[in-house]
Amino acid sequence: MPENAPTPAIRDVRMRGFSHRATVATALAWLDAHTELLASEPVALADSVGRVLVIDIVSDFDVPTFSRSMMDGFAVQAADTLGAAPYNRLPLRIVGEVFPGAAIDTQVQSGEAVKIMTGAPIPSGADAVLPAEKVDIEEDRVLALGDVSPGKHIGLPGEDIKVGTTVLSAGRRLRPQDVGVLSSIGVAEVAARRKPRVRIVVTGNELLPPGSKPEGCKIVDANSPMLAGLVERDGGIAINPGIVSDNPDAILEALRDDADVILVSGGSSVGQEDHAPALVAQHGELGIHGVAMRPSSPAGMGVLDGRLVFLLPGNPVSCLCAYDFFAGRAIRSLGGRRADWPYQTQQLPLRRKLVSTVGRLDYARVQVIDNEIEPLAISGASILSSTTRADGFVLIPEDSEGYAGGTNVTVYLYDS
Amino acid sequence: MPENAPTPAIRDVRMRGFSHRATVATALAWLDAHTELLASEPVALADSVGRVLVIDIVSDFDVPTFSRSMMDGFAVQAADTLGAAPYNRLPLRIVGEVFPGAAIDTQVQSGEAVKIMTGAPIPSGADAVLPAEKVDIEEDRVLALGDVSPGKHIGLPGEDIKVGTTVLSAGRRLRPQDVGVLSSIGVAEVAARRKPRVRIVVTGNELLPPGSKPEGCKIVDANSPMLAGLVERDGGIAINPGIVSDNPDAILEALRDDADVILVSGGSSVGQEDHAPALVAQHGELGIHGVAMRPSSPAGMGVLDGRLVFLLPGNPVSCLCAYDFFAGRAIRSLGGRRADWPYQTQQLPLRRKLVSTVGRLDYARVQVIDNEIEPLAISGASILSSTTRADGFVLIPEDSEGYAGGTNVTVYLYDS
Repeated sequence: MPENAPTPAIRDVRMRGFSHRATVATALAWLDAHTELLASEPVALADSVGRVLVIDIVSDFDVPTFSRSMMDGFAVQAADTLGAAPYNRLPLRIVGEVFPGAAIDTQVQSGEAVKIMTGAPIPSGADAVLPAEKVDIEEDRVLALGDVSPGKHIGLPGEDIKVGTTVLSAGRRLRPQDVGVLSSIGVAEVAARRKPRVRIVVTGNELLPPGSKPEGCKIVDANSPMLAGLVERDGGIAINPGIVSDNPDAILEALRDDADVILVSGGSSVGQEDHAPALVAQHGELGIHGVAMRPSSPAGMGVLDGRLVFLLPGNPVSCLCAYDFFAGRAIRSLGGRRADWPYQTQQLPLRRKLVSTVGRLDYARVQVIDNEIEPLAISGASILSSTTRADGFVLIPEDSEGYAGGTNVTVYLYDS
Repeated sequence: MPENAPTPAIRDVRMRGFSHRATVATALAWLDAHTELLASEPVALADSVGRVLVIDIVSDFDVPTFSRSMMDGFAVQAADTLGAAPYNRLPLRIVGEVFPGAAIDTQVQSGEAVKIMTGAPIPSGADAVLPAEKVDIEEDRVLALGDVSPGKHIGLPGEDIKVGTTVLSAGRRLRPQDVGVLSSIGVAEVAARRKPRVRIVVTGNELLPPGSKPEGCKIVDANSPMLAGLVERDGGIAINPGIVSDNPDAILEALRDDADVILVSGGSSVGQEDHAPALVAQHGELGIHGVAMRPSSPAGMGVLDGRLVFLLPGNPVSCLCAYDFFAGRAIRSLGGRRADWPYQTQQLPLRRKLVSTVGRLDYARVQVIDNEIEPLAISGASILSSTTRADGFVLIPEDSEGYAGGTNVTVYLYDS
């Protein structure tokens, strides 16, 4: 049933109407109550950027583990440089050289210096580094041109990270630099939240598979490639084996696929060809069917064999909108990400009024032009190209008749 | 040479100092002048989310290609419903049924109706759809309870997309819904900007490969896993075969790897072990070496055999910063993405003053606490954990001594 139909009077062509539509808030509350974090899995460090930590990570090491030079220069005993100045050059005998990664046995005594590079370990006996620009060099000795205090230009063990420090906490979505830090403390793999496996079930005898040319009275499936992209964006693994026949057996088999989440696109309303809602109700729990929103009012969700099932309308804009409101949120939450939308927002004035109807939430596609919001004139939920022309969307809540021109509203931007 | 050293007086341990440091603006200008878009490659539609279009895409088809019903109901001649009302039910003979995807030959004559589902093609002869809720059904006939005007509830060919329309323009980074639209117009693959291949060259005899435990006077390489994550974030393909020996032959071979961009981490300054700058200068063009910024002042960039080479300091924070200022920008640009940072920004007040030095740009790591910016107290560029404790960073331009507490400044947020 098209979602802009008036209150239905059910007859032959319809199994039943939406006698009641849940509010978006009710639907979200049902959803959140049925969404649990997935288990942990080991992930190699090199693959862990963007993954979510299941447990705190505590360092087993000081980083660095040793005292190192922070300058190119000479490792010395600071006391030997006392009083050194360009007019009072103090000589030190060069007794060795130390490079990063290669310790030396040489013990630095009073009156001695070891040539040292940045990052190299401080030789025993030395307590400071005299920088290269504070010396003159004469064959096997240096002449100190200035003094250094004890500890100067030495990086101490644990200066970056101390052993026992909680480096990153459970729930953290790993940034590139986090993975660098984990590498530095000797982590080879992390316990990460498993990525939700999301089976896409697209039904409709009018559909041709993606990659086909439109032909006759058939249209090419737009929803499954779109949904696959959305699922990957939200940290899921999309499983998209192709169009499913419009019959209850085929659909039930797909609903029982090995996955954490099932997205059904098409056949999700209350028409005679809409099998999925009845199947979910019969074999599981149809928690929500019909939501007071536009587009996407025929959206639904339930649980079958422990999997979350989302009934997404076949109209592509409705499909996108219902995904974004419900399925995407669940997929992000299952995988340990923040439930909120991944869209950036801006507060901008409306160029003209944006009307809605009290009692339903509206998802209005808009353009942003010269830092103002221009609502798109759109005839219906079948116009997917509206979401490519749009820069984003504005929500008009259930209790609002819309906004006057000039009102500052929040726009959610598709480009994130 | 450590980047916080004073103006160098060059002697034995140093080959030469940074007699001159380029401003960040000069370095960016050099970089942009040496960054060209990569060529096109074919990409299957299913893999195209996030890819950048090389050419405009014009639809070869109307979408839909046929007239379709927007409601469940009956396809009729609108004139037959004139005057119909609940108290004036007008009978129409049911002569067939049409489902989505299956055209029928039946020609609808005056006085006839064809049962039709949403999305099914309108049978010839019919010019409107009488919705299910506007009829009573009696065996082989329907009784119209209301009238419909010609064209009512019919979606016309091209209503979503008209043949010849430019659906998406060159330069577009494809969103999930864009890929849906492309599927609907029969696109099976797109001409996308090739992804930059980025060879990561990490040098340093003090380094152990990622996955090792820190040991003795060695540290574990933090930069290559961090850089790989950054490269992938920016749309590149990271090539990270492992640590390269600190010798000129090995480094030159790596600089000539099959890649579009070379990132050298470590050995990029002016010390005696810093081979990469000399190699780039000798075999190519060392465009910039030394930048008036902190951290990352020893950063450099050049061109060798047509590849962009970035000299990133080995200190991990400097490495991150130099990547973000220069390498990341080039990688995004080569692949056709926007050059700007992928970080979200906010304007927030500083909790306390943030000081800098005139003549260099400062990259200050900060936390965001209760919608205020708290600068992190950090001792140096070797403290990578500062970038995991930080929520983002604030820039202090060359001509500024810093900001007073309470000033509203832009914070760039690491979590995007």
